[in-house]
Amino acid sequence: MKIYEDRQAPNPRRVRIFLAEKGIEMRFEQVEFMAAEHKTGDFKVKNPLQEVPVLELDDGTHLSETVAICRYFEGLYPDPPLLGQPGDALDLARTDMWQRRIEFKILAPVVAAFRHLHPAMAPFQVPQVREWGEANTETAGSMLDWLDQELANRPYMAGVRYSIADITALVAVDFARVAHIKPLEGRSHLARWHGAVSARDSAKA
Amino acid sequence: MKIYEDRQAPNPRRVRIFLAEKGIEMRFEQVEFMAAEHKTGDFKVKNPLQEVPVLELDDGTHLSETVAICRYFEGLYPDPPLLGQPGDALDLARTDMWQRRIEFKILAPVVAAFRHLHPAMAPFQVPQVREWGEANTETAGSMLDWLDQELANRPYMAGVRYSIADITALVAVDFARVAHIKPLEGRSHLARWHGAVSARDSAKA
Repeated sequence: MKIYEDRQAPNPRRVRIFLAEKGIEMRFEQVEFMAAEHKTGDFKVKNPLQEVPVLELDDGTHLSETVAICRYFEGLYPDPPLLGQPGDALDLARTDMWQRRIEFKILAPVVAAFRHLHPAMAPFQVPQVREWGEANTETAGSMLDWLDQELANRPYMAGVRYSIADITALVAVDFARVAHIKPLEGRSHLARWHGAVSARDSAKA
Repeated sequence: MKIYEDRQAPNPRRVRIFLAEKGIEMRFEQVEFMAAEHKTGDFKVKNPLQEVPVLELDDGTHLSETVAICRYFEGLYPDPPLLGQPGDALDLARTDMWQRRIEFKILAPVVAAFRHLHPAMAPFQVPQVREWGEANTETAGSMLDWLDQELANRPYMAGVRYSIADITALVAVDFARVAHIKPLEGRSHLARWHGAVSARDSAKA
């Protein structure tokens, strides 16, 4: 079993942190985005959408999509639960809601700002639309303000327990700097949360 | 228990089809997007992100995000399974992968094309970026071509069984017309699949 990834990219880091929280050892093979290695015919067989991460099972089965890969490992190694408490429909749904909210409203605009504004992305983001990149920088800022307020009364994104929603948020917040967005400035609750999740061993993954 | 929705919008339809497949009766309350009813302070309490659908439980708990709402009902009413076979980690992950691929690569560009190009969306999509709308129309077309080929050798999006991935795809394909995209023209496998899933009672939801 191994994972194809690019250590620079945000989505592979989500999977690495998830695996670290579960204590799962993994082999990784680098597919360099900046060298367009994800565009080769070989890699297209592994994922027709030409994105990392991709999990390759020992029988040659490939699985892509960050959260789907995490879901596979949650099934195999349920402890500690990171997608919500097994058997608790509301907790599973609430955890999924927060994971999605953060993925769509924080991570997606941060990545869009990076792709549409960073000169190095021009060969990959076609067309690169400056106006759309700037709109996403603004969206990321207002959504980070909202998230800061949400954290005023609870320790973690989805409630009292660390979950996949915190992983998505940590990766989004750390990647925001690459997109020239200052995620923690003037956001004290978010900064407190960021300090706590960054202190976990898994944050080094 | 009830769901706040707008019958015109694509995401609430995903939940209605999901409920119809499960045979779950539900009360609905309309929140009219075009009348900006989702922007009121009242609605913001139900979902700070001002989006439908929102599920309201009898104790006043609110749950938003289409797939999270579906996940809640999957937990309460496991039959028929629509998020993958319970206890089968790979099937659960594969179903999630296909749901996400279709959500990000088909539904998202279709909705972006609609929001950035349709004159009626101007008050809601700020800024409305024509170049980005046109890029999404093109992305939707090439991704529909890819999906057509994927369906050459299997009946449903995630494999041999109807699942939430088919629901997301049906709603995306039907909504494509509103975005002036012709989803089935020249795509015979997709058209065959669309005929089959549209013939189910749930498609009327």
